[in-house]
Amino acid sequence: MKVDINFEAKNGKNYQVFIDEFDDLKLCGKVAIITNPKVCGLHLKTLLEKISADEIFVITVPDGEEYKNQDSVDMVLENLFNHKFNRSSTLIAFGGGVVGDLTGFCASIYQRGIDFIQIPTTLLSQVDASVGGKTGINNKFGKNLIGAFYQPKAVYIQSDFLDTLPSREFGAGVAEIVKMAVTFDRDFFLWLESVDLYKKEDLKLAIKKSVQTKADVVALDEKERGLRAVLNYGHTFAHVIENLTNYSKYLHGEAVSIGICMANCLSVRLGYLKQDEADKIRVLLERYSLPTKFEIENIELFYDHFFLDKKADDRKIKFILASGLGSHLIVDDISKEIVIEVLKEYKL
Amino acid sequence: MKVDINFEAKNGKNYQVFIDEFDDLKLCGKVAIITNPKVCGLHLKTLLEKISADEIFVITVPDGEEYKNQDSVDMVLENLFNHKFNRSSTLIAFGGGVVGDLTGFCASIYQRGIDFIQIPTTLLSQVDASVGGKTGINNKFGKNLIGAFYQPKAVYIQSDFLDTLPSREFGAGVAEIVKMAVTFDRDFFLWLESVDLYKKEDLKLAIKKSVQTKADVVALDEKERGLRAVLNYGHTFAHVIENLTNYSKYLHGEAVSIGICMANCLSVRLGYLKQDEADKIRVLLERYSLPTKFEIENIELFYDHFFLDKKADDRKIKFILASGLGSHLIVDDISKEIVIEVLKEYKL
Repeated sequence: MKVDINFEAKNGKNYQVFIDEFDDLKLCGKVAIITNPKVCGLHLKTLLEKISADEIFVITVPDGEEYKNQDSVDMVLENLFNHKFNRSSTLIAFGGGVVGDLTGFCASIYQRGIDFIQIPTTLLSQVDASVGGKTGINNKFGKNLIGAFYQPKAVYIQSDFLDTLPSREFGAGVAEIVKMAVTFDRDFFLWLESVDLYKKEDLKLAIKKSVQTKADVVALDEKERGLRAVLNYGHTFAHVIENLTNYSKYLHGEAVSIGICMANCLSVRLGYLKQDEADKIRVLLERYSLPTKFEIENIELFYDHFFLDKKADDRKIKFILASGLGSHLIVDDISKEIVIEVLKEYKL
Repeated sequence: MKVDINFEAKNGKNYQVFIDEFDDLKLCGKVAIITNPKVCGLHLKTLLEKISADEIFVITVPDGEEYKNQDSVDMVLENLFNHKFNRSSTLIAFGGGVVGDLTGFCASIYQRGIDFIQIPTTLLSQVDASVGGKTGINNKFGKNLIGAFYQPKAVYIQSDFLDTLPSREFGAGVAEIVKMAVTFDRDFFLWLESVDLYKKEDLKLAIKKSVQTKADVVALDEKERGLRAVLNYGHTFAHVIENLTNYSKYLHGEAVSIGICMANCLSVRLGYLKQDEADKIRVLLERYSLPTKFEIENIELFYDHFFLDKKADDRKIKFILASGLGSHLIVDDISKEIVIEVLKEYKL
C-alpha cells in the first residue's frame, strides 16, 4: 500500500509513505541509521537486509524523551562530521517518535539540510509522528521548543516491526488512530468500531487510513496555521496530564486517550457532542486497554497548567472539540467557569 | 526602490527587498532586534525611530565570525524563552553577515520557525548575504556547517547605514557586486566600469542590481543544487586564502577579490576568458582598494586546502569560472597539473 503526500504547493516536498512495501531500498552515498539500543537489537538485522548504500553507519541514542535534547543532537552531528557526511548523504530515523523527531531535526540543520527517511517502529509513530515533518527537541523550557518543519524524503512503514511492540505502546498508537477518525472521518470511526486492530489485516488498513488522513491535513496546512491544529484533539488536556505526572505515569498516547475523553466531556457540555457519541469513543479506547479516567487532585493547579504551554498565546486556551463523530471544531473562547465544571467531573 | 523575490514555486516564501524605502515598519507581537555592540551604538536609535511593535527587545551578540556559534544561538534562544516569545513573534537581524546568519538560524529553529527580517548594515550583507535565506553557524569542523535554508519575511536595506562603514568593509562589499556582474550581467559590468560607487546614487543602483541578480538566482535554485553555486565565483580560492591566513588578514570580500583574480587566471589558461577581460576585472577591483594578489608559500599545501571544505565531494574541486564578461561556467574536472600551474603564478 502506498500513500502520496502532495503538498498544497508544488514545492518539491511531495513524498510517499510506503506501507508494507519495503523490499529493497537502494541509496547512494553515505547513510546513517539513527536508532536506539532496543530497536537496534530487535530489528537492525532486518533493516540492513533491506537497504543498500555506499557506506552505512549506525548511531544509537539512548531511549527516552529525556534524551531528545541538544546533547543528543551534538552527538549525532559530531558523528556525521567525523565520518565526512556531505549534502548527498542520508539519515534514516529508525525507531519511535523520539528518534524520528531528533533525526529529522539533525537532518534539517546538517549543512543546511540533508535528506532523511523515516522508518518508524512504533504504532504511534507509524500512524502519526513519522508523517508531516514536525521535528524537534526539548529543552529546559519545555517540549519540542526547538525544531523545524522539515519533511522526510519518504516514509517506510513495516507492520512486522510492531510484532515486538509492548501492548501498552500498541494502545498508545491506537489513541492517535481514534483521534484521526473522530475528528475527520465518521466512516473510519464506524469501521474502527467494527474491526479488531489486533488482527494484522485490520491494523494495516487502520494505519493506511490514519496516514492518509494525516497526509491530507498536513498537505493543506504544513506549518500549523489552522487546520493542522485539529490533530491536537485531546492533546491540550494530555499535555497537562503528562506534566502533572512528570511524564512517567502515562505514555503519550495514553494521556491523549484521557485527554480525548476530557475534551469530549467539554464538547458534550457545550452541546456539540451527544453523550452517547462520547460514550462510543470511550468504549473504543477502552477496548484497547487505554486509560480514560484521571483523578484531578487540584483543579486550579490543573487549570493553570493549560498556560504553561510555551507556544500558547497569552491567556487563551485553544480546545479542539469533536462536533459529532467525524468532524471537529476549534474554540479558544471557553470561559474558565465552564472548563472548571468539566474538570470537576474528574475531581477525586 | 523595491525588488521582488519570487520563488520558482508558489510556496509562500516570496518576499520583498526594500532599498531606501523604510519609513515606518509596524509589527505585531514581540520583536527582538539581534545586533552587535557597535551597530547598536551607531544605529539603534535610527532603527527604533522607524519600527513599532507591541514589545521590542534588543539582544547583542559579540562582533566577529568566531561568535557565530552554538553558544550564541543558545544565548539568543534563552532570551527569547525568558521573554516568552511565541510563534507570532519576530526577530530582526540588524548588522552584517554574522548577525544575519545567526539570527536567521535562530528564527528557523525557535518553536519550529518564526518570522525574521533582515536589516543589513554592511555593504556585503546588503548586496549579498541578507538575500537568499542561507543561515547558519560555525563549529569546530568548519564554517556554516550547521544551518538552514530559511527565507526572511522581508529585507530592508538602508544605504545611510553605510555612511559609517569602514572603507575596507566597503571594498569587501564591492567585491561581491563585481562577482554578480562578471558572472551574470555584462551590461552591469560595463556600467560598473563607468560609475563611481563612492557616489551614493551610483551605489544605490549597484545595490539594487546586485540584489535583483541574487534574487533571480535564488528564486531558480534556492537549495543550491545547481545555478546558485555560481555565486561562489572566487570563493573556492577565497576559502583557502582565508583558512591559510586564519581568517584574520583579509575580510571575506577581500579574499573573494583575490579569489576572483585566481579563478580568472585559471579561466584564461583554459581559454574561457581573454587576458584583457581578466585585466579589466582586476582593475575594477583595485579601484576600490581591494587586494588582487596573494603570495603562496607552499603550493601543495594550498592545493590540499581545496579538499578541506566539508561540503565538498570527495576528490573533486568545483570551480566557478567567468567565461567572458557576464557569463559563467561550472567545472569540476580540471586536472591537478593545470591548477598547480595557476597557483605557481602566485608563488613567492
